[in-house]
Amino acid sequence: MLSLDQMKAISRQSPAKIVLLVIDGLGGLPRPETSKTELETADTPNLDRLASKGICGMIDPVSRGITPGSAPGHLALFGYDPLKFTVGRGILEVLGIDFDVKKRDVAARGNFCTIDQRGLVVDRRAGRIPTEKNAGLCKSLSAIVLDGAELYVVPVKEHRFAAVFRGDELSGDVTDSDPQQVGVAPQTMVPLSPTAQKAARLANEFAAKAKATLADHHPANMVLLRGFSQYPNLPTVAEIYKLNAAAIAAYPMYRGLAKLVGMKILDTGASIEDEFDTLVQHYADHDFFFVHVKMSDSAGEDGDFDAKVRVLEEVDELLPKIIKLDPDVLVVSGDHSTPALLKAHSWHPVPLILYSKWGRLDRVREFSEPACSSGALGRFPAVEVMPLAMANALKLAKFGA
Amino acid sequence: MLSLDQMKAISRQSPAKIVLLVIDGLGGLPRPETSKTELETADTPNLDRLASKGICGMIDPVSRGITPGSAPGHLALFGYDPLKFTVGRGILEVLGIDFDVKKRDVAARGNFCTIDQRGLVVDRRAGRIPTEKNAGLCKSLSAIVLDGAELYVVPVKEHRFAAVFRGDELSGDVTDSDPQQVGVAPQTMVPLSPTAQKAARLANEFAAKAKATLADHHPANMVLLRGFSQYPNLPTVAEIYKLNAAAIAAYPMYRGLAKLVGMKILDTGASIEDEFDTLVQHYADHDFFFVHVKMSDSAGEDGDFDAKVRVLEEVDELLPKIIKLDPDVLVVSGDHSTPALLKAHSWHPVPLILYSKWGRLDRVREFSEPACSSGALGRFPAVEVMPLAMANALKLAKFGA
Repeated sequence: MLSLDQMKAISRQSPAKIVLLVIDGLGGLPRPETSKTELETADTPNLDRLASKGICGMIDPVSRGITPGSAPGHLALFGYDPLKFTVGRGILEVLGIDFDVKKRDVAARGNFCTIDQRGLVVDRRAGRIPTEKNAGLCKSLSAIVLDGAELYVVPVKEHRFAAVFRGDELSGDVTDSDPQQVGVAPQTMVPLSPTAQKAARLANEFAAKAKATLADHHPANMVLLRGFSQYPNLPTVAEIYKLNAAAIAAYPMYRGLAKLVGMKILDTGASIEDEFDTLVQHYADHDFFFVHVKMSDSAGEDGDFDAKVRVLEEVDELLPKIIKLDPDVLVVSGDHSTPALLKAHSWHPVPLILYSKWGRLDRVREFSEPACSSGALGRFPAVEVMPLAMANALKLAKFGA
Repeated sequence: MLSLDQMKAISRQSPAKIVLLVIDGLGGLPRPETSKTELETADTPNLDRLASKGICGMIDPVSRGITPGSAPGHLALFGYDPLKFTVGRGILEVLGIDFDVKKRDVAARGNFCTIDQRGLVVDRRAGRIPTEKNAGLCKSLSAIVLDGAELYVVPVKEHRFAAVFRGDELSGDVTDSDPQQVGVAPQTMVPLSPTAQKAARLANEFAAKAKATLADHHPANMVLLRGFSQYPNLPTVAEIYKLNAAAIAAYPMYRGLAKLVGMKILDTGASIEDEFDTLVQHYADHDFFFVHVKMSDSAGEDGDFDAKVRVLEEVDELLPKIIKLDPDVLVVSGDHSTPALLKAHSWHPVPLILYSKWGRLDRVREFSEPACSSGALGRFPAVEVMPLAMANALKLAKFGA
């Protein structure tokens, strides 16, 4: 695998267009009654035709046996080694709520929690307070004034919020206050490097003031913080691949991940049809499009096999909108598997179609896990998808003399 | 591939049980008369059924083209990069004779050899003296008193023995005395680092005193030493995988390799049936079992194709003892290939079955090299077997946010 610098040296700008369609949580597991996965169950004539015309394979987002979070799953698809480039929990949380995070910010994931009179945590999630209650409490916490930094406390869902410290000389190299168990007190946050001393001091100051502010708000009478992190400094896809890339994603976290690698975020409606229409509308303006379909993953996480099948069928039905654009390269795959049977992300490899004029066809005639397992691309790491897409768009020069 | 530290961060303890059945030297080569390997020739209905119910693939113990010794073959299966974690020849020799080696010991592999009047080596193996003769000579050598360390000289087989130096401030960073050719004198052993000065001095003192002791014992009138090494400091499987692991192996070297990674060694009888019965007996007490079958490798090394076939059939016949335990994950594979046609370990990849409730089935219906080559797991490095087994036992949390 080439380094990003080596890739930079051979990539070249051209008018050829690449569309990367990411069906989140695409891969599944067979339902015992039928021995068919969600994708095998779904009626997908358009995807099957694309599989026939393209070359297929199976990708491992991180490596065999490893279940990826959303960040490593997407970074790999964008061509970034997910073991080398990591995104902290706090940053991912603020990306997920469209918060305009700055490079000097330190972000942490927060939980409202319940402590008893002795100060010991009795419920790490404060009984999962309603999101509306959360919003009110975050407003109160936002009024806290810290010595040497601005503070943003932004509600997420139920007991979850994000805390952002904005100031000079901050670092995310700070331990969690969340003890990850009940019956003990929230932990003092400690700097893990000298440059993190200020951030740790601010975090402890915030926790102390939050405790005072929340004293009368049982069960949400304290906060727990974890995943302190800063915006990772990634080379952009413009730098590496010389791409003028755009992202179409209805869910904030995926817009955030695309922003991390320098893609332009296009405004879009929430449905799959809206997203595909957004692609059609902006097709002339960019040479790379990342299109993200979220609901397949949500259905998988809910354990709703049939709902996931329906999402896949909806993608299939709308696929001609993309096909009609006749992109030079069309990649259809997922960032990881989310089998409805497991109700969670999983480690299973993900089927992939790479369609281009320059594919050496294989015998796969159907878009499914078993069919793609015998595809000509074989089984390979997701981080190699971008080089393959670039090559098939004739956007990569020869490596070496 | 995750580092062991990254693996440590996502592994979690659970009651789920993993059985790793290692059929030593499993892979073979086709006999010209039938074009079938040992495994294809063997009648193995139970393994074939397991292959149908599980997912299959082919593993490379080290990398393509590389023939592994027993140590890298097993370390890879235990999840340790065999190119990074190495076991010295001396240490492997003492592991192979159940010698209770300590962390501060330095061990070397020894040969009795023949030297002429000028002191030049004329036979590096002293005419392969009988093992009984070896035992007597080792007893004499054990009486040698060294200045600053205890000495253990332990017979192995024919001309082979192990020399163990036990003392403070020793290091295995010492050159060999074995010149690996005849017609030259045994070499002075030299420290390769300042910390190895004492060990080198002891080794030369031992060689000189051994020469005096053996003067009248032609053809075994001198010793050659090589592979000076210390017990490698490996993180344990308890640390990395949070496993309470046990090893069942009739041969000392494999118990030694399992001990290296912190497995508990279970007492067992020598036959395959004994070993499987030991598994049944102790099944409640551990969550990971390494079960080692040696005779397949021995038959391969002897060039006895039919004997190897019989060992494989015996494993198959006894397999229901393991199946009945209904482990959450059952992996059947080998540490390397030992084709009877080559009478030696070889570089050929090794077939593997991974059985679990969470496998996405493939179309493999038979446990053989060609069938497993088309399995859904594809061809992959053996070091990824543990992550896969852990994932299928649901013992790995998500990687990354």
